[in-house]
Amino acid sequence: MLEAMFFIAITAEAMTAALAAGRRKMDWFGVCLLACVTALGGGTARDILLGHYPLYWVHNPYVLLLVCGAALLTIAMARVVDRLRWPFLLLDALGLVVFTIVGCNVAIEMGQHPLIVIVAGMVTGIVGGILRDVLCNDVPLVFSSELYATVSIVTGVIYYFGLQANLQQDLVMLVAIAVGFALRVVALIWKWEMPKFVYDKDLR
Amino acid sequence: MLEAMFFIAITAEAMTAALAAGRRKMDWFGVCLLACVTALGGGTARDILLGHYPLYWVHNPYVLLLVCGAALLTIAMARVVDRLRWPFLLLDALGLVVFTIVGCNVAIEMGQHPLIVIVAGMVTGIVGGILRDVLCNDVPLVFSSELYATVSIVTGVIYYFGLQANLQQDLVMLVAIAVGFALRVVALIWKWEMPKFVYDKDLR
Amino acid sequence: MLEAMFFIAITAEAMTAALAAGRRKMDWFGVCLLACVTALGGGTARDILLGHYPLYWVHNPYVLLLVCGAALLTIAMARVVDRLRWPFLLLDALGLVVFTIVGCNVAIEMGQHPLIVIVAGMVTGIVGGILRDVLCNDVPLVFSSELYATVSIVTGVIYYFGLQANLQQDLVMLVAIAVGFALRVVALIWKWEMPKFVYDKDLR
Repeated sequence: MLEAMFFIAITAEAMTAALAAGRRKMDWFGVCLLACVTALGGGTARDILLGHYPLYWVHNPYVLLLVCGAALLTIAMARVVDRLRWPFLLLDALGLVVFTIVGCNVAIEMGQHPLIVIVAGMVTGIVGGILRDVLCNDVPLVFSSELYATVSIVTGVIYYFGLQANLQQDLVMLVAIAVGFALRVVALIWKWEMPKFVYDKDLR
Repeated sequence: MLEAMFFIAITAEAMTAALAAGRRKMDWFGVCLLACVTALGGGTARDILLGHYPLYWVHNPYVLLLVCGAALLTIAMARVVDRLRWPFLLLDALGLVVFTIVGCNVAIEMGQHPLIVIVAGMVTGIVGGILRDVLCNDVPLVFSSELYATVSIVTGVIYYFGLQANLQQDLVMLVAIAVGFALRVVALIWKWEMPKFVYDKDLR
Repeated sequence: MLEAMFFIAITAEAMTAALAAGRRKMDWFGVCLLACVTALGGGTARDILLGHYPLYWVHNPYVLLLVCGAALLTIAMARVVDRLRWPFLLLDALGLVVFTIVGCNVAIEMGQHPLIVIVAGMVTGIVGGILRDVLCNDVPLVFSSELYATVSIVTGVIYYFGLQANLQQDLVMLVAIAVGFALRVVALIWKWEMPKFVYDKDLR
């Protein structure tokens, strides 16, 4: 079940990346590349940081075709997509939570420290979006938007300590996904944000 | 012969990077650093993604001196370089194609899947330019310019399937380089571009 | 003693990163993330380039808490920090020099070529700041500011050749730190800069 949700999440991330590419007037190749970086960048960054080789997409290269297919489909459907704002935000929220769980699992299997498990989940969840924003020449949204990274951390903490408490894995996973997903949706609806740090003076 | 072309390609990439640095008014150190990132970044990214250690320039550190030398020479010759637009574009096209072949070879030697061989070639060919543009705070040119990445993919496909067909390696390599190089030059002359995906509405 | 200075340097880098985040109006999470990337990014880049696993912070995850703590403390103290321009610049200079020595040590222990030892020190010293500037959507300062990278190279050269000359390690380290630190401070006071390469014509 996690695997099915994982592929849905990758597809959703690829489609949001394709829309971002369209806003920058990229060509079809740029759309595919940005989709790959966004959908697979988080897992890639986690594996490189943890020295966990081979990378997921090097081992299963067909996922590259899935991502490029989803990106090209988005081009074809761009007019429809416009009316699908909420379905997209929900799929994106699901993607964030599912990527986090997948990332935690990799770090747990490697026997990493609890802090690193949480960080691995967070890197998997958010780095794809950061790379997308850097390549589009924006300040990454995750630094200032609604509870995005916080959702990932909360999901990871629930999942890790649920497993430590010897509860059943599937149950823990479902609870972590449900709580994280709900938190993100509520934050989107009520525009919950972390407090901002505004500092105007230039040090130099 | 591939090795001679490889060094010519590295030198050419270093020089184009130096000109980009000059447009950003970087200091001499910045020029050298940007040249290293541009000329060696593609191969470095490929090796990190494939877990192929040690990196080329860590194993052969003198290539760093070659790159910095080419960059500093470009500073000295900036007035002449200005008249050399076409030689530079041709050397850059050669670099793209040669880097692609080198990247494919590394992945083939590691026994990777055909898709990964093509991706390894493409990463080697284009990532250096992407990093150069990100560090110069531009949206990477490769996302919207003339058939740049497509040339890399075509070259990689010809090379890989030529080798699979048990043709002689040198012959396959020459054909792949010639076709890729010609495609890039024709695309430059006639301003061939991939279709663009233009999407104006903001999802958020 | 190097270790104590290393922690001071990490804390100082985290605090300067927090101020940069404040200028971009990031939220508290963004402040912590940018602090981690800035303070630990140089060492992480070095270890990934050299294939030196596990990464420092994966092995000692509590350093993440130190960095985030320093970043959050900076938020609380932002008004005071404003008057501390010079202490900060001095700590930042110390950080640059100490990071360089730590990076050289890693490469020396791996038995790398002298050029790679110097590069490893430089990567450790400057990459954190480059990542900070890229994530804040600036052209990295290090490409055009006062002798920043040069200080790192000079420190690395003194340290490496001092050790090669069989002098006592602690003495060599102190001399390298003192010379590098003094050079940076003098460059700040007298606004020493590397010559700039200014090139106005667009190649394309």
